Amino acid sequence: MSEFDLIARIAPLLDGAGDDVVVGHGDDAAVVRVGGSEVVVAVDVVVEGVHFRRDLSSWEDVGWKAVAVNVSDLAAMGAIPAAAVIGLCRPAGFGEDDVEALYRGLRAACDQWDLRLVGGDSVSGPALVVSVTTFGRVGGSGAVTRAGALPGDRLVVVGALGAAAAALAQVARGARPDPAHLAAHRRPRALPEAGRSLAQHGARAMIDVSDGLGADLGHLCAASGVAARVTASALPVAPGAREVGGWRLVCGGGEDFALVAALPPECAEEAARAAADAGGVLAAVVGEVHEPHGTTVVLDLPGGGTLDLDRMGYDHFREGDK
Amino acid sequence: MSEFDLIARIAPLLDGAGDDVVVGHGDDAAVVRVGGSEVVVAVDVVVEGVHFRRDLSSWEDVGWKAVAVNVSDLAAMGAIPAAAVIGLCRPAGFGEDDVEALYRGLRAACDQWDLRLVGGDSVSGPALVVSVTTFGRVGGSGAVTRAGALPGDRLVVVGALGAAAAALAQVARGARPDPAHLAAHRRPRALPEAGRSLAQHGARAMIDVSDGLGADLGHLCAASGVAARVTASALPVAPGAREVGGWRLVCGGGEDFALVAALPPECAEEAARAAADAGGVLAAVVGEVHEPHGTTVVLDLPGGGTLDLDRMGYDHFREGDK
Repeated sequence: MSEFDLIARIAPLLDGAGDDVVVGHGDDAAVVRVGGSEVVVAVDVVVEGVHFRRDLSSWEDVGWKAVAVNVSDLAAMGAIPAAAVIGLCRPAGFGEDDVEALYRGLRAACDQWDLRLVGGDSVSGPALVVSVTTFGRVGGSGAVTRAGALPGDRLVVVGALGAAAAALAQVARGARPDPAHLAAHRRPRALPEAGRSLAQHGARAMIDVSDGLGADLGHLCAASGVAARVTASALPVAPGAREVGGWRLVCGGGEDFALVAALPPECAEEAARAAADAGGVLAAVVGEVHEPHGTTVVLDLPGGGTLDLDRMGYDHFREGDK
Repeated sequence: MSEFDLIARIAPLLDGAGDDVVVGHGDDAAVVRVGGSEVVVAVDVVVEGVHFRRDLSSWEDVGWKAVAVNVSDLAAMGAIPAAAVIGLCRPAGFGEDDVEALYRGLRAACDQWDLRLVGGDSVSGPALVVSVTTFGRVGGSGAVTRAGALPGDRLVVVGALGAAAAALAQVARGARPDPAHLAAHRRPRALPEAGRSLAQHGARAMIDVSDGLGADLGHLCAASGVAARVTASALPVAPGAREVGGWRLVCGGGEDFALVAALPPECAEEAARAAADAGGVLAAVVGEVHEPHGTTVVLDLPGGGTLDLDRMGYDHFREGDK
C-alpha cells in the first residue's frame, strides 16, 4: 500500500474547505476557524527506522526533529508557530532518562522557534512513536497553500538542499559523513521566518521540501494544475552534497526542510533576498511555472541535458546512490 | 516507572500558564491564545492492550474511541469541540481496509460531536498507535480547570459510572458482559454539551472521569488543594454495574467518560438537572468539598462504612474483581 493509495482511500472521510475549515486535508497544514481566529494545524509522526536511526541520533535529536518537521509544515503555510502538544507511545525499554532526553529535545526546538510546549499524553506500548501536533496563527497575508501557482510565476527555493541526504548516503556506503551534513539530518532547521517573509512578498503557492525538491514541487504543481522547470545551476545546494550523490541526491534525497514557493515574476528576486535574510540561509530564484504538459517537474542540467524529477521517490534510509 | 513519576520528571520542560498560555500542562486540556482566540487543545494516544482489545473492538470502534476520549477532555474544560487531527503509526499487517475502517470510526465520532476532521500524518511503523489531537473554543464562561474547587462546594457527577469497567470485569472472568456495558467500552460517549452546561451553571472546577471517580476526583482535589466526601447511594451508576464489581468497580474502574464538577451549593441541584438534560444522561449531586485533612476522597457507603478512593489505581484490563 503506497502512501498515495492510502490518502486516496481515506480522503472522502476527511473534511475539505467549508464551514469553519479554511484549508482542509491535503496541504502542509490545515487551517480551521476557532472562536474567530484562523488556526493553522500540522501533525507529524516520527518513528525509528523511518525518521531516525538510533546509531545516528540521540533522543534529544529525535525530540528536536519531531518539532522541526512540524514547524516546517507551518512555515510552508506562512504561519507563525504558537504551541505544540505531544502524543508519546513508549516501549518498556524506554526509561525515564530517555523520556527526559526526548523532552529536552522537544523543549529546545520549541524554544528555537518560540512555541509553547503545553503537554500531551504518554502511554506505554509496543514501540516508540512520537506524534507532535503544532499550531499557529496565519500572518497578515493569510495562509499560503500549495494550490495557487500560475504559469509565468517564478520559483524560489529557500534553504540549502541535499545535506541530510548526503549524510545518509555516506552512512549507507560505510563512509564517514560530513559533520555538517549529519547535523542537518539530526537537527533539521525549520524556516518559519522565511516562510512568513515569502508570504509577505507575494507567494501564491508554497510547500516545504521534506521528501526532495522533485517530489514536493510535484505536489505543488499537482495542486496548482501547473508544471515546473528548474535550473540545476541556480539551486541553493549544501556545500559538498552534490559531490556525494549528484543532482538526484540534491533534488530527491529529502529531509531538507527547505521551502519552495511560486511568486509573480516581478516579486521573485526581492522575495528570495528577503527570505534568505529572514531565515539566515541560502535562497535563489531557481525556475519557473508553466502550463502543464508532459513531465511535471523538469530539471535543466548544467551540461545541457535534463532530469525528470517527477518519479523521484522518497526513502530516507534507501541505499545511497540516488 | 509510574505515569506520575514520569510527569514529575518532564513537568519542568513544559510550559505552565503565562504569556500566551492560559492553561498549561497538567489539566484535561491546555488553553493557548492564538491570534486573539483562546484555543483549547487535548491529545490522547490510543494503543492496543491499553485502550482496546482486538477481540472486543472493531477498528471502527477504535477510531470512535480515540476521538471520544479527546472530546471528553475538552468537555471537562467546558469547551466546544472544533476540529481533530490524527497521527497514525500502522504496522505492516494493518491493511488499507483496516485504515479505512479506523477512519470511518474517527469520522463517525467527529460527526457525533461536530468536529471537522482535517487530516493528519500516517507512517508505517512497528505497532498500531493512534494519536488524536482535538481543538475547541472556550464557552462564554471561560475554561474550567481542575483547580478552583472551594470547601463547601457541592460535587456533581454527570454520566453513569461503571458500565465499561463492568464489561471488562466480566470478560476477565470469562463471563458474558452485558451488551450495554460492552457498548460503553467500545463506543464511549463524551459529554461536551453537559460540560458546557456545568460551566454555564457555575462550575468552579471540573475533570472527566476516565481513570475512575476516585482517581480523577483525587486529581481535582489535589489541584484545588481540597478534599472530598462522596455519598455512594447518590452516585449515578450504570444499571447492573454495581452487581458486577461493587463500589470499587463503580468508583475505580475507569473509562466512564463522565464528568465531575465542583459548584457553589446554591447552584448544584439546578446544574445537575441542566447537565443531565444537555447530555441526555444521569446526573446527581453526590457529595461535597471540604478542607484537606486525612484521606483526600472518602466514599460513604450505604451500610454506614467508608471506602478510601484515593488509592484506586487504574488498569483497564486488570483482573476483574476490583
